Order: sequence, then C-alpha cells, then structure tokens
Amino acid sequence: MASSDKIWTAGLVVIGDEILSGRTHDKNIAQLASWLQVQGIRLAEVRVVPDVLEAIVEAVNALRARNDYLFTTGGIGPTHDDITVDAVAAALGVGVSIHPDARAVLEEYYASRGGLNDARLRMARVPEGGELIPNRMSAAPGIKTGNVYLLAGVPHICAQMLDALTGQLEGGSPLLSETVGCWVPESEVADLLREVEKAHDGCQIGSYPFFREGKTGANFVVRSTDAGLLKSCVDTLCEGLGELGRDFTPGGI
Amino acid sequence: MASSDKIWTAGLVVIGDEILSGRTHDKNIAQLASWLQVQGIRLAEVRVVPDVLEAIVEAVNALRARNDYLFTTGGIGPTHDDITVDAVAAALGVGVSIHPDARAVLEEYYASRGGLNDARLRMARVPEGGELIPNRMSAAPGIKTGNVYLLAGVPHICAQMLDALTGQLEGGSPLLSETVGCWVPESEVADLLREVEKAHDGCQIGSYPFFREGKTGANFVVRSTDAGLLKSCVDTLCEGLGELGRDFTPGGI
Repeated sequence: MASSDKIWTAGLVVIGDEILSGRTHDKNIAQLASWLQVQGIRLAEVRVVPDVLEAIVEAVNALRARNDYLFTTGGIGPTHDDITVDAVAAALGVGVSIHPDARAVLEEYYASRGGLNDARLRMARVPEGGELIPNRMSAAPGIKTGNVYLLAGVPHICAQMLDALTGQLEGGSPLLSETVGCWVPESEVADLLREVEKAHDGCQIGSYPFFREGKTGANFVVRSTDAGLLKSCVDTLCEGLGELGRDFTPGGI
Repeated sequence: MASSDKIWTAGLVVIGDEILSGRTHDKNIAQLASWLQVQGIRLAEVRVVPDVLEAIVEAVNALRARNDYLFTTGGIGPTHDDITVDAVAAALGVGVSIHPDARAVLEEYYASRGGLNDARLRMARVPEGGELIPNRMSAAPGIKTGNVYLLAGVPHICAQMLDALTGQLEGGSPLLSETVGCWVPESEVADLLREVEKAHDGCQIGSYPFFREGKTGANFVVRSTDAGLLKSCVDTLCEGLGELGRDFTPGGI
C-alpha cells in the first residue's frame, strides 16, 4: 500500500434487543462488511446495543466521530420499539421532521394496503436535514444524514438499501485477500506465519483453524491493498509451507 | 420484577479481523446471549474489534467497568494474531505468565501430537492471577481473571467453555419471554403494542416483522422477569389482536 493512500473506515451500530437476547442471529455485520470491502472502506468496529435511547446515542457519537462513515441497522420500523431516528437526531443535536418525499412514497405504497396511518407515517420521520435511501422492497426508506446511514434491520431490506448506495461512497483501494488452506495444526506453522507477515509490511496474515473429517487444518488469509505485495506474501507463505513438507490448497480448504 | 431484584449484566467483546472483513459470520453473539439468559444474566452490549491491541484494551476496559461480567471471544490460539491475553493483561495492568496447570494440560495433549513447541506454549499464557476454564475439545483452556472471561472464537470450542461455566456465575431472575405470531403488518397494530406495553410496567414488547409465502406478518415477543406479569401482558395483547379481528398464533409463526 502506498503510504499516501488514505484508509477509509466505517463503524456499525446494530440496534436491537432481539440480537442481545439471542432470539435473532445477526446477518448484517457480515453483509455490511462484505459490501464495504467492495467500496474500498474498512469496517473498523461494530457495537450491538439495546433499544435504549441513551445507549444508541453513545454508540453513534463514539463511532461517527472516529470513522469516515457510520451505519446503523435496525429500529426504523413503525412500532414503539423503533427509536433509531429519535436517537440519531439526539446524537446529532437536531430535531425530527416528516420528510415530504418519504411521506409521498409511503402514501403511494399504502394506498392499496389500508392507507397511511400514524404508525406508518412514523417511517417518514428523519433527523432534520436527512436525505432518503431508496427501498424498492417495502417502501419505507433508509436515511442518510451527515456521515450517518440508517438502514433497515431485516437483512434483505438492508441489502436493498446497500444496493442503492453502491458506488455512492468515496473509498480507497479495496482490501484484497487471498486464502491458502493446509491440513496442518496452526501451532506447527506459527513461526512461519509470523515471519512471513513480518517480512511483508502492508500485509496481514490471519490464521483460522478448523476440525473436519477428524483432521486438523487451517486457512491462512493474507490481506493487503497492494496486489503485488499480496502475491509476494502468498508466494513466500506457500514456499515456506512446502519447505515444511506440507501440501497446501490455493483458495483455501 | 420486584424492585429489589438486581439485574445482572454482561458485555461481550468479539475479537477478530475475520468478523470485520465479512469472511466469518459470527455465531458467538447469539450463542453467548442464549446461554446468559439461562444464567439470569442479560447481555447488555457487544463490541466487535479488530486484532489490534489498543482497540481490544479500550473495549475491554469500557465494558468490564459497567457490567458484572465481561466475556471475550477469539484470539487465544497459538499464532501471532492471537493477542487477546496480552490485551486483557494490558487492560488490567498486570503481566502475563505461563499457568502451570495449562502447561501440564497442553503437554499431555500434545505428547502424542508432535510435542509442546513455543507456539503451543503460548496457549498456556494467562494474565497474572488468571484461572483456567476447561476445554475438553482441544485442551487449550479459556481464562477467568477478575470479572473477565476469555473464551475461544471457534464456536464449538466456545460452547465447551460455556458448558464448563454453567451454573458457576451468580445471576438474577432469568428474563422470560413469550412470542405471539400474527399475519398482520406491524404498522396496523402499532398502537395496540405501545398501549399494552405501557399498561404492563416491567414488560417489553418487541415487534419483528417478516415476509413469507407472499404475505406480511410479525412476531411479537413479550419479555419480563416476572412470570405473572408476562402472562397478563400476553393475554392482554392476544385479546387486543382478537378485538381487531386478527387470528394469532401462540408461540409465534
């Protein structure tokens, strides 16, 4: 990575009692992480917080201050436990207002579905100054305000909103990665991994062990924003595994 | 909930670049959350941080101070990217030493597996004063130090360690929950949900919409530590749904 390259980072605040109770398995961390990689933005930290205004405000303010972007998932629906808009507005020190375009979208969507009631109109509320992120799935939009992006908690609706944002956010060089798999206990090649990483500044090597078919193995993931450096690091790693008499599988096991 | 009941809380720090890159889908948040419920402990906040010492230290210190318990998952293996022990020691302001019992366990385990090398011995390191959490799966133990519990990142090894801790941690009344499912857009019953929750202090109602078989529905999850209050709240909710002409499904859809 050239030293002049800015590394763009994002934080994520996952909002919802259902994640913290274990009822719902979060899918948005991995979904957002993968999407951000393609945009050249690194997910730097995630916080999962309950449906409590103060907890959301604290997390939003901490992470928006130290990242280029902050995303939230969850809590933008029509019910009393959906308080993300109010919490983000409080974090930003602004009021909440009905966005006329969101109201129009919801009016049209609900025209054939029983009409726009007070609960549904809640989904047109935005922190003052907020813009809309389209949602082709269920009308209720996401919201962009400053560097904060409010997305839906339901994973496939969240995906729609990310789709609408694709290519819209400034990022840096995407973090590239290559995986090498090996049927070896990672503890037998720990020295090799450390030395190869040390010899390739700008590359990180992660080691992810597994047990399958009664055998121990590991996938080694090399990451870098520089394609040449990445290749050199992977080549050196494979050479080292070969010298230890180990077969390896490019692409991972 | 009687007002004298202490609510016991826990924080969780998930450690690992592989979660933040999207490569690995975390399973430990839901696993720990469900296990804590049974112990009468509430998961209050989760942070996911990279394999960076300062980031781990900050998260550990923030969450251990304001919760009864703090758990970490990940980063306790034999390779260079496993820095959780060093980070927790730094957070606690103590040194790191080899635990003799951990060394003995690892020596025995690796006797028939190539012997105990330097990398494997790393897994016997604990923050000074730390005690071991048994791991019947792959020998390398978890660690308890003060109110901090260091667990493995591999989900089924993490599960073994939780199993060893079952019944060992003081907790309060377990948070009970009951689910009612209904083929209704949540936005049509938002007023009912809010009013029923308001009328039952000590109960929370979460609303979790879904789309299935081309239809809109929602599960309403009522939570309370008081069984009688929970039942009364669920009954009132079901009565309200009935008055709106809605069929509902106890247990959820």
